[in-house]
Parts: sequence; C-alpha cells; structure tokens
Amino acid sequence: MDDRIVNEILEFRDERGWKQYHNPKDLAISLSLEVAELLENFQWSSSEEAVAKRMLSIKEELADVLIYSVLFAEAVGLDLDEIIMEKLSKNSKKYPVEKAFGKKEKYTEL
Amino acid sequence: MDDRIVNEILEFRDERGWKQYHNPKDLAISLSLEVAELLENFQWSSSEEAVAKRMLSIKEELADVLIYSVLFAEAVGLDLDEIIMEKLSKNSKKYPVEKAFGKKEKYTEL
Amino acid sequence: MDDRIVNEILEFRDERGWKQYHNPKDLAISLSLEVAELLENFQWSSSEEAVAKRMLSIKEELADVLIYSVLFAEAVGLDLDEIIMEKLSKNSKKYPVEKAFGKKEKYTEL
Amino acid sequence: MDDRIVNEILEFRDERGWKQYHNPKDLAISLSLEVAELLENFQWSSSEEAVAKRMLSIKEELADVLIYSVLFAEAVGLDLDEIIMEKLSKNSKKYPVEKAFGKKEKYTEL
Repeated sequence: MDDRIVNEILEFRDERGWKQYHNPKDLAISLSLEVAELLENFQWSSSEEAVAKRMLSIKEELADVLIYSVLFAEAVGLDLDEIIMEKLSKNSKKYPVEKAFGKKEKYTEL
Repeated sequence: MDDRIVNEILEFRDERGWKQYHNPKDLAISLSLEVAELLENFQWSSSEEAVAKRMLSIKEELADVLIYSVLFAEAVGLDLDEIIMEKLSKNSKKYPVEKAFGKKEKYTEL
Repeated sequence: MDDRIVNEILEFRDERGWKQYHNPKDLAISLSLEVAELLENFQWSSSEEAVAKRMLSIKEELADVLIYSVLFAEAVGLDLDEIIMEKLSKNSKKYPVEKAFGKKEKYTEL
Repeated sequence: MDDRIVNEILEFRDERGWKQYHNPKDLAISLSLEVAELLENFQWSSSEEAVAKRMLSIKEELADVLIYSVLFAEAVGLDLDEIIMEKLSKNSKKYPVEKAFGKKEKYTEL
C-alpha cells in the first residue's frame, strides 16, 4: 500500500494519542466490528438493492476495514504488499487453475 | 493500493473464472469469515501470546482480509486509496484532536 | 432455557477444567467465531442451496452459538429467559406494530 | 428452550409481518451483526471494565443473539434443545476429558 496513505493513517492515530490502546487483540476485534458494519448494508437486501441504496455507507465501512488493517499490520510489524503477494502464491497452490476453474468450493472440497 | 498488487489479485480471480460468484453480498460475507479467522488467533490468548505463537496464521489471515477488500472494492467500483483518504477526513471531524486526545471512547461518547 | 440443558453445558465445561479460561471477553470472541462458522455455510450460496446441502454443519454451528451463549450468560450472571423477555418488551416499543408492519427497515429509519 | 419464550419470539415476528424477510441466509447475517454488537462492549476494555460499565448493553445484545438464534432455528426447522444435546455429545468425543483437561487448545492441536 502507498506509503503516503499508510503515513496519513498512522499520523491520524498518533495525533490523537491512540497508539497506547492499539494492541493486536483489540485491533482484530475492531476489524471484526467494522466488517459487521459493512455487512449490515446487505442484511435483508440483495447485492443490487444494497449497492443502489447504501453506497455511501458501504464506502465508509470498507474504508474503515482498510484503515484498521493498516493499523493492525503496523502493530504486529507486517508489510501489507508483502503478505498479500505471499498469500496469493500460497493460494495458487491451494487452488490450482485446472482444479479450481469455475468452482466455488473450498480447496478442501475440490 | 499499488496497481501491481490489485492486478495480481484480479488476475488470480479471473484465471479461475471466479468473477461470476463475486457479488458484493457474498464478498462482504467472505470478509467477515476471514476476519473471524484472524480473530481466532487471539481467542483465549493475550496479544503477546498470540503474536509470539501464531504469527504465521495472523499474517495469512490478514492477507486474506486485504485480498477480499480489494475484490469487494472492485466489485462495487471503489478506489481504495480514495475512500481511505475521504474517510480519514471525515473521521478527523468526528474525532477532533482536542476532544479525542488520549481517549478511547466512541465519538458519540466524547 | 431448560435447567437440564444449562447444567449439561456447565458440567461439560467443568469436567474439562475450562472455567479458568472463560472470561467474558474471550467468550464474546468465541461467539463471534461460531457465528462465522454458521455463516460460512451460506457463502456463495442461496438459503435454499445451503439448507439442502449443508444442514449438518448448520445444525452443529447453531448449537455452538447456543452453547457459548449459555457459557457467556453464566460468566456474567445473566438469566437467558429473563433477558429475552425484557428485550422483547423493549423491542416492541422500538418497533410498534403499526409502524413496523411488513417493513424491513431499522427502527431508526421507520 | 421454553416453549413460552419461543412462542413470544415468533409472535413478535408475526405481528409485524416479518416472516417474509426471514430467510436463513439473512438470519445468519443478523446473528453475525448482533454478536458484533455484543463484542463491541469489550473493544479496548478488559472483561472486568466492560462488565462494570456496560452491563445493560451486554445484556441486550446477548438477548438479541438468542432471539435471532430462535428465529434462525425456526426458519430451518431445528429444535434448540435437541441440537445442543447432540452437539455436546459430539464435543465430548472431540474433547475427551483425559486429553482436554485444563487445556485451552483446539481439538486439532491436543
């Protein structure tokens, strides 16, 4: 992720003196709460209806998920780009194209 | 987020013909499942114990949260960097430094 | 909830010496993990498909949600029947029949 | 669970004409949202602090988890007491007392 964005997020935290609260366990809880707020937009709705009516909230909650992902990564010392590339490489072994193509099953069921 | 990373993620999806399943509602559910897998590392543990013993799993599950965030953003047509910057700007009004400094309360309780 | 069931659950915990780990925060995390396992059955599926193909898992994960609800209630000293009746009474004021009938909106949007 | 409580919950739903929205997938999402609201009480707090300061909210959100569990069970045709007893029996094989005593590890790690 762009260093400028990461820095803006960390600066936001530090200007408010919040680093003291940002232990990994509570940040993982926070991520879980933000994802629930994102998911709430889809409760009782199809994707189409949610996207048509609730895009502002969807946008803001997704942003919060990303902001907390950056804060979590910083708290445990991980680099986002690096872990994504590593995970894609691992996933490509769990889901080889020839077995996974067009299938929605989990790798344990392929 | 770096275009190269976003493209790797979308290519991973497209090589497997998975776009057909990636409606926003199911992607929001997926995000929620991946965050739960991240959080599982902290169940019955302090942050310190989890980080010491389960870093590999923490790293992989955080990566999955980010990968699904990218897939979700693409499915609804959002740019990650843009929505993060917008949300930080909005949050700075909800949490003005002079009111929020050193406090862990929600903006509704400040 | 039936005392016999509650007692079976607490006995299961105590025979294994698990009460020492059962603080409310970790039990709330556990509830969140079990609900994610329930929800996983519906990822990429309609309700109908999930119910047709995954009923065994749905049944087991719902049971885990209930078992952890009982363990959580016991850890914080709450009676399940009592809090349900109280909440229904509160909800009936938030959602008066004449305003809420046939509507899926949250009370803040009615 | 006590038939009287289950009936109160179903009556609450039916007086408001909400059964039409209560498909299992959206009810599983609802459960996930209610558990997040319960968990929110523990964000940035120890169990002790949360229980001391936020008991009213804890009580109400746990009640909502139970209410949605009843609604979900009804929607898919499950009996709560029965599935709990079955799951306890299964768990006692996954976690035999002699292996699990005093251990917080998952059965896959015992």
